[in-house]
Amino acid sequence: MLENIDLSMSVKNGEYKENIKSLEEELGELQRHAWELKIPIILVFEGWHSSGMAEDINSFILPLDPRGYDFHTMARPCYEEAMKPFLWRFWTKIPVEGKIAIFDRSWYSRAIIEKFGKEGSEEALEKCLKEINYFERQLAVDGCLILKFFLHISEKEQKERFKKIRKDNIPLILDEYEGVGGGELDFIHEYGKYLPVVEKVLEMTDFPHSPWTIVEANDRKFATLKIISTVIQVVRGHIEKVTRTPGQQTIKYLDVSTSKFLDLNGSLLEKVDLSKTLPFDEYKESKKQCQNKLRELQYELFRQKRSLVIVFEGMDAAGKGGDIHRLVQELNPRLYRVLPVGAPNDIEKAHHYLWRFLEGMPKAGHMTIYDRSWYGRVLVERIEGLCSDDEWKRAYREINEFEEILTNSGTIVLKFWLQIDRDTQLERFESRKADPRKQWKITPEDWRNRERWVDYVDAAEEILQKTSTSYAPWIVVEANDKYYSRIKVLKTVAETLERELKS
Amino acid sequence: MLENIDLSMSVKNGEYKENIKSLEEELGELQRHAWELKIPIILVFEGWHSSGMAEDINSFILPLDPRGYDFHTMARPCYEEAMKPFLWRFWTKIPVEGKIAIFDRSWYSRAIIEKFGKEGSEEALEKCLKEINYFERQLAVDGCLILKFFLHISEKEQKERFKKIRKDNIPLILDEYEGVGGGELDFIHEYGKYLPVVEKVLEMTDFPHSPWTIVEANDRKFATLKIISTVIQVVRGHIEKVTRTPGQQTIKYLDVSTSKFLDLNGSLLEKVDLSKTLPFDEYKESKKQCQNKLRELQYELFRQKRSLVIVFEGMDAAGKGGDIHRLVQELNPRLYRVLPVGAPNDIEKAHHYLWRFLEGMPKAGHMTIYDRSWYGRVLVERIEGLCSDDEWKRAYREINEFEEILTNSGTIVLKFWLQIDRDTQLERFESRKADPRKQWKITPEDWRNRERWVDYVDAAEEILQKTSTSYAPWIVVEANDKYYSRIKVLKTVAETLERELKS
Repeated sequence: MLENIDLSMSVKNGEYKENIKSLEEELGELQRHAWELKIPIILVFEGWHSSGMAEDINSFILPLDPRGYDFHTMARPCYEEAMKPFLWRFWTKIPVEGKIAIFDRSWYSRAIIEKFGKEGSEEALEKCLKEINYFERQLAVDGCLILKFFLHISEKEQKERFKKIRKDNIPLILDEYEGVGGGELDFIHEYGKYLPVVEKVLEMTDFPHSPWTIVEANDRKFATLKIISTVIQVVRGHIEKVTRTPGQQTIKYLDVSTSKFLDLNGSLLEKVDLSKTLPFDEYKESKKQCQNKLRELQYELFRQKRSLVIVFEGMDAAGKGGDIHRLVQELNPRLYRVLPVGAPNDIEKAHHYLWRFLEGMPKAGHMTIYDRSWYGRVLVERIEGLCSDDEWKRAYREINEFEEILTNSGTIVLKFWLQIDRDTQLERFESRKADPRKQWKITPEDWRNRERWVDYVDAAEEILQKTSTSYAPWIVVEANDKYYSRIKVLKTVAETLERELKS
Repeated sequence: MLENIDLSMSVKNGEYKENIKSLEEELGELQRHAWELKIPIILVFEGWHSSGMAEDINSFILPLDPRGYDFHTMARPCYEEAMKPFLWRFWTKIPVEGKIAIFDRSWYSRAIIEKFGKEGSEEALEKCLKEINYFERQLAVDGCLILKFFLHISEKEQKERFKKIRKDNIPLILDEYEGVGGGELDFIHEYGKYLPVVEKVLEMTDFPHSPWTIVEANDRKFATLKIISTVIQVVRGHIEKVTRTPGQQTIKYLDVSTSKFLDLNGSLLEKVDLSKTLPFDEYKESKKQCQNKLRELQYELFRQKRSLVIVFEGMDAAGKGGDIHRLVQELNPRLYRVLPVGAPNDIEKAHHYLWRFLEGMPKAGHMTIYDRSWYGRVLVERIEGLCSDDEWKRAYREINEFEEILTNSGTIVLKFWLQIDRDTQLERFESRKADPRKQWKITPEDWRNRERWVDYVDAAEEILQKTSTSYAPWIVVEANDKYYSRIKVLKTVAETLERELKS
């Protein structure tokens, strides 16, 4: 593939000067247009070392309004980043609506370096490419325009350039960590060894919604013109499509109906036995035992550098807060976080809906407990019409992929659905209303949600059926009795950790 | 100081149980009240190792609504953080209005470890404490409530606890970096050596607006009760003060009029010779020379791990964008960022006004160019009444301190004021209006600002007089002639870098 590219392409100085000015103006105009239309754009630059990426990128960004883009050089992850799932630090950098995110090296270089280079494993690389494909498809479906460039030069040309760089004593900015003894950037130097790896990566990740463009970069002027004119062409085409068919700018979700979890076994929640209870004495005893065990297990999680994500969902007043309280009561606050999830703010709304959940993801050794979560997409947002049918329908698959990526990185994912009946909810609402110390817990919204009880039950059924996976199962908790509910949660977490951390 | 503390304080189990419940309820209530009043609160926890901080903090946060606080364990900085000014990573974590930021270890531990522990220098520690005092005072003046706790145990008690920790094999979460061979946490273990250092730190940083409370922590129950009741007392007092005298919740700024830069030499801008010009040929030649020099200097900046902040301010259409364009034209985009500064978003508005400028601060070896900046506080915000008189009047001092902290960390700070006359502005506005490719550059706001020309000149005069410091000088650029302006900026930056980087 790369070997068949004609690298003799070049452009004369006169021709370059003749074209560049008008191309720059058109690029600037298109950027402002994309901004008005709120189209997020991702540009990925990859290429051989000394292929001129920095210079080409600078030529590309100079005509842009600096308000309109963010530039990210993706070198070695710092400690905190390295302790998160591989894609985490790229997910956090996706562009807000209307902006261009320019990646100078990206998940591709990092996948090759961290998966193939360090682990020497083609299998690890392929698994990582699969995650990358999820990532890019999810963004593209959400309306993000993705364009990827690979700057290609010949091995001979690279050798010449290395000489010049050494002569001019230009530092290698991609590896600025002090005291690093190389190894990290083999990929950059060992052309012959990495050529087949690069070709494989390009082939496995080239899609209509996120295509690769090979840029012949032996001649810098040619490369600059090719990059700018390609971006112009693609962005212009995308803008035309978007403005011609408003509302249709996103790729249609393909296979909602083929989900293997669909309609598997009728209503799950109806079968739940809500009469289960636990006497106070037993509760007290079990609680103490479980909490002691959990205190030790959290340290084992830390020692093994695993991490834990726990999701709590359920009807209002189902007891999520109380369950979480008992879960963390004896834990070390340095190792856990409780993140309550409410309505997104404006900046969150201007990103992909999963973006805001990245910030709180636990690093290796830690745990995060979500009081409500990304399932809001297929619960409140679905029911209240806060997103389109297309959006929530494709969310099941996206959520499964999101959780798959989490578990691939060694995160344990547990999801609790707290189920109560309508009478119990009413009782608890009334008691909150009556107690001055608890009144703040009850809002008019809670009463409105109560009116839509059946909608919530339907949505919950679909969630349980479509997103209970082997790697991230749902556990339905019978929560009419608070003692029973708390102990079930405590026990499930402790047992899961014991199983996962058993060496 | 610490030696005179009576560490025999303890509380009986019955007494604890009797009090804790109602204290917890009151704490929860006060938190919600502070949230409604939009009071940001900072709680700092410091103390000897094994003084029970984690447990005490957990007892403290359990009664709080998790939406209302953020918890930060401040252990070793990761690579990216270590490449920024010392206070950077704490500044970024200040609470949004209404929230509590809880620091489990803080700038104090880090100052002791990074300044005294590693450099062994009392002078470096004292310089750092001075910066910390700026930091806390600026937040307090802005309405932030700051409370600091030091958990004190005896050396004997500490030894006992170490034994138990070793026996139970509990990992040290404060130092989770792999392959770290100790040294970092001497402070934690060497009680005798660090006692006088800790005492000095406590003494030098104890102020009415950010007081220390010593917590006798030999007995855990006593410590928990003391922490919770102290917070209750202080927060309640603060809320009473705020609600009694609305608008007066902030500490009055002390010494606006004593600024040494005030009224030093009448109008500076009037004396500027705006007739200066540069012929095109000379411009072209100088531009090339300067840009080539800057390309090399950026690599030298990188090699020496210094950093550079450049601020551009000036009237609308003074040519800031054009100057910046020429400045970065031949630079490596991996080493510079251009950050245009507009109106703050909602989340930025709910923080101290300097908070939003932290994100873009260059790490060691890099540079950031601000197209408008924190000087907006004393320009547009002052003129349009977007902040109170008190707020912009104290901003000069705050900005000087802010820039002092930057330069202390090895950052070079340069500030350009681009001056044009009113006729030149009108000419440029008209030409933008006439050119379809430039119309986007001119908005009704620009015309409105133009009406307030005199106000802007007055505000600029005061800025130049009050914030031109030896460490962060203002350079007034005669900008009627674009060629002259661009070369003056290019030359000044190149000369400054040459001087600063000369080894």
